Amino acid sequence: MPSAEDIAHTVNRYIGLLAKGSADDLVELYADDATVEDPVGGEVHIGQQAIRGFYSAIEGAERECELVSLRIAGNEAAFQFRLTVKAGDGGLVIEPIDVMAFNDDGKVAAMKAYWAADNVTQL
Amino acid sequence: MPSAEDIAHTVNRYIGLLAKGSADDLVELYADDATVEDPVGGEVHIGQQAIRGFYSAIEGAERECELVSLRIAGNEAAFQFRLTVKAGDGGLVIEPIDVMAFNDDGKVAAMKAYWAADNVTQL
Repeated sequence: MPSAEDIAHTVNRYIGLLAKGSADDLVELYADDATVEDPVGGEVHIGQQAIRGFYSAIEGAERECELVSLRIAGNEAAFQFRLTVKAGDGGLVIEPIDVMAFNDDGKVAAMKAYWAADNVTQL
Repeated sequence: MPSAEDIAHTVNRYIGLLAKGSADDLVELYADDATVEDPVGGEVHIGQQAIRGFYSAIEGAERECELVSLRIAGNEAAFQFRLTVKAGDGGLVIEPIDVMAFNDDGKVAAMKAYWAADNVTQL
């Protein structure tokens, strides 16, 4: 089981990669058979290929990302963050709470993102 | 399925009852066969009797509770809050992120609380 320090390191790396990383970089944090449900209630992306496709949507955009709060318990983490995705003169800011469950290797086994339209601000 | 407004109402009622309610009041928010894992990685309390026992631990104490942030997606909610439990001249402040999944009747089917010792401050 990963330590709380391992989990904190991975969450901080995730935030850094949301700002500056490629889809391939982000997928490396995930287990082979991981699931991503973002937002919760939407489509569940299963496996690294599907997850790469999900993150490729933001890959080309200029982004900023900031961790707002982080809670770690057992082999899971819940964290609030603020992601800015720029597009031309505008863009959007989205402020989700994500939950990640980690496997014994410290890879993300499941991610669920809690947000809705009222957590998105147009720039 | 409960609406986002229904879910927000129940979360706000939960925060209010953490401050002022009895264990019985809190249990009324839960489905008969609900589960509570607080903190995540600890014992899972299954069913209303076990959940009542869990909340009875704070029932006698003077408390304050404040919702910090709330995200609603699908039939789930994630929210950060600050709970103060007073004991004599001291007490503690705990700042978890909780996740709740709701059933079709709008009752809480599952609650998971993300916090560890470093999210608890002694007064």
